[in-house]
Amino acid sequence: MSIDLDALTPHPERLAERLASLAEFHDSTRPGWSREVFSESYRASREWVRRQMADAGLDPVVDPAGNIVGRLPGRRGSGPALVTGSHTDTVAQGGRFDGIVGVLTGIEVAQRFRETGTTLEHDLVVVDFLGEEANDFGISCLGSRAVAGVLRPEHLDRVDSTGTRLGDAIERFGLDPHAALRQAWNPGDVHAYVELHVEQGPLLESSGTSIGVVTAIAGIDRILMRFAGRAGHAGTTHMADRHDALVSAAAAVLAVERAGCGAPVHGVATPGCIESSPESMGVITDRARLWAEIRSVDGTWLQGARRQIVDEVAEEAARRGVRFDVEYLTDQDPVPTDELLQDVIGQSADRLGLPWRAVPSGAGHDAAHLARLGPMGMIFVPSQGGLSHCPEEFTAPADIEQGAHVLAGTLATLDQRPVVRSE
Amino acid sequence: MSIDLDALTPHPERLAERLASLAEFHDSTRPGWSREVFSESYRASREWVRRQMADAGLDPVVDPAGNIVGRLPGRRGSGPALVTGSHTDTVAQGGRFDGIVGVLTGIEVAQRFRETGTTLEHDLVVVDFLGEEANDFGISCLGSRAVAGVLRPEHLDRVDSTGTRLGDAIERFGLDPHAALRQAWNPGDVHAYVELHVEQGPLLESSGTSIGVVTAIAGIDRILMRFAGRAGHAGTTHMADRHDALVSAAAAVLAVERAGCGAPVHGVATPGCIESSPESMGVITDRARLWAEIRSVDGTWLQGARRQIVDEVAEEAARRGVRFDVEYLTDQDPVPTDELLQDVIGQSADRLGLPWRAVPSGAGHDAAHLARLGPMGMIFVPSQGGLSHCPEEFTAPADIEQGAHVLAGTLATLDQRPVVRSE
Repeated sequence: MSIDLDALTPHPERLAERLASLAEFHDSTRPGWSREVFSESYRASREWVRRQMADAGLDPVVDPAGNIVGRLPGRRGSGPALVTGSHTDTVAQGGRFDGIVGVLTGIEVAQRFRETGTTLEHDLVVVDFLGEEANDFGISCLGSRAVAGVLRPEHLDRVDSTGTRLGDAIERFGLDPHAALRQAWNPGDVHAYVELHVEQGPLLESSGTSIGVVTAIAGIDRILMRFAGRAGHAGTTHMADRHDALVSAAAAVLAVERAGCGAPVHGVATPGCIESSPESMGVITDRARLWAEIRSVDGTWLQGARRQIVDEVAEEAARRGVRFDVEYLTDQDPVPTDELLQDVIGQSADRLGLPWRAVPSGAGHDAAHLARLGPMGMIFVPSQGGLSHCPEEFTAPADIEQGAHVLAGTLATLDQRPVVRSE
Repeated sequence: MSIDLDALTPHPERLAERLASLAEFHDSTRPGWSREVFSESYRASREWVRRQMADAGLDPVVDPAGNIVGRLPGRRGSGPALVTGSHTDTVAQGGRFDGIVGVLTGIEVAQRFRETGTTLEHDLVVVDFLGEEANDFGISCLGSRAVAGVLRPEHLDRVDSTGTRLGDAIERFGLDPHAALRQAWNPGDVHAYVELHVEQGPLLESSGTSIGVVTAIAGIDRILMRFAGRAGHAGTTHMADRHDALVSAAAAVLAVERAGCGAPVHGVATPGCIESSPESMGVITDRARLWAEIRSVDGTWLQGARRQIVDEVAEEAARRGVRFDVEYLTDQDPVPTDELLQDVIGQSADRLGLPWRAVPSGAGHDAAHLARLGPMGMIFVPSQGGLSHCPEEFTAPADIEQGAHVLAGTLATLDQRPVVRSE
């Protein structure tokens, strides 16, 4: 069966309206768009997402791990499904596109298949994965980890800065954390996973390219550095007698920057924030904590950078008589995408006359976890100015429509192929 | 009239009991002793202080600036008073002695004068000054500034990190901020001001000396540095394209440390804390604020150190494309003590057979403001390990008793003398 790709052109108005409507769910007390996992605005937005899936005919269910899963039945009635999706949570003071366009284009594409009477061989599953963004518990991709079978009991015991356990936060959100641990899909459940996402980097825009075919997803190391110095009076303690935890944490921020600046292309290192106590003026800081992360598509570099940071920070802390320890929060290897899927995405763009190029993903994605279950590919659309995770994040409506169209073509093509992992 | 100094020996048990009782008023949810200005524990403790003054026969009143003022009438019935006192607020997670011993020994000494029927020529005024410690509004010594006539209308418009105006905080504490601005005493009101305080430094303990005769109070510069960078995705923004406000703030912490380490004796520089946003992992920091302070008894060094910090920080921020501005919160010149009062304090120690030495004060004190109104002197007692502004702050009961005895002798001697400023 040959599918008429023109007929699957997405509805621009419907896509734009859904993007605008979802953006209305955010914490209005803060600048930008804040819809963090477990927040009230996130809770409200998810009910809205569920309704959109229902309107699109996807008969959505919320699994115990909090993923909103819609399904368009295929001709075969069972067996592996084509899966697409992304997430709808945001970072604090984030934007309106990251993750969101993957969920809404997934719904739109499924709705177009249905509206045009295009019945696929495989079921098409559209997923809004729970809490993809980094959070205060230090564990991102909550929902996609659960389906990939890599959400672990010890993750539930992570505590945020207010002392709340992740497991309790999940439960308060109306979900079952223990059932979430048992949500793993079987590898046979996924025929292929394709995620559309904004690039969050500058390469597509600066090269005037509509479509990015992702080659690999960067690995992420997140670490928490703790410093224990000694409090004392800021007016009477001689400089030589000080053990200032804040100074050690500040030196660590610069060590993180140095490691990033020494990176090859697509290696970056970023300090998160410093918490210190006591916070009063007039007192030397006793305790400080610094969160930091390193990312790269090069796993070897990632390990070396992490070692470099920890060694430098330990040395500087020791020199100031400040105790230092480090906790490794996340250690996610780089994930290459499936080469066959790269080809299919590129060919789908070609069929639509859209220029494309191969790009790496500096950001992490739910797709990195889905890759454990089957062949995985990602489609990128341009980010204006390369900006993301900020209120200025923007992708033009036409770019989103084109991306959705390539997604439709990719899914339709994959539906016809016996996909095996290309590795 | 010659005063019998032996008869004025303070009651050790009463002093110790009052110290223990006052320590019970603190925020028990935090380590150490937190009784910050405007807190509920401070409010409760002040009612207790008022009762102690009443029990000592000092007929206390709370002035509109929040100072608790007790008075033991002298023979003359009017005219300049002998004034002593200090403060009972603490820094967050502070100790049980800083300020507190000055108020409680003041009460004890007045009570001993009264109990022994020792009527002075001058009124003896004991003051618990409102909020001496540095606070989130960036303005310390609230009560002593008010009586010295240097609390200004613009101070009331300072806002803390929650956006509360100082004037509103004063009002919510049951005081009248506008009346506080009119609380200035006249220079003729003060015959002499003597404050007993813990040293908060190591010199007395390490030299085995009971009594410190303070020569000068360090000046304090407090500054707030603001950094405005640009948010962006921590995985996709190349290091060279970053404008990370947290990195600039961290570099500023190290600039503060460098300035302090280049100081002569009794010059120190201390970073307070860094606030940054957004705080999420995965986002480059857009905004950061760093509070810092510099102290010295040398005014020239103080100005130079401030300039050095601001210049270095501005240069580093510019290099990272981060906007930087600085707000000067407090600019308090070093204050020498009165030389005649230094002599009287030393002689009082001699009469009691107590070893004493001249010491500078690295910390700021209410006394620095009282010096505007009349001759000012300070008595220091040893701080164990030189520690202060931390839970480990400790001064031995015997040291406090000896200090109180020297305070009694000093006040009795000054009562007999026509004191004129020695400058």
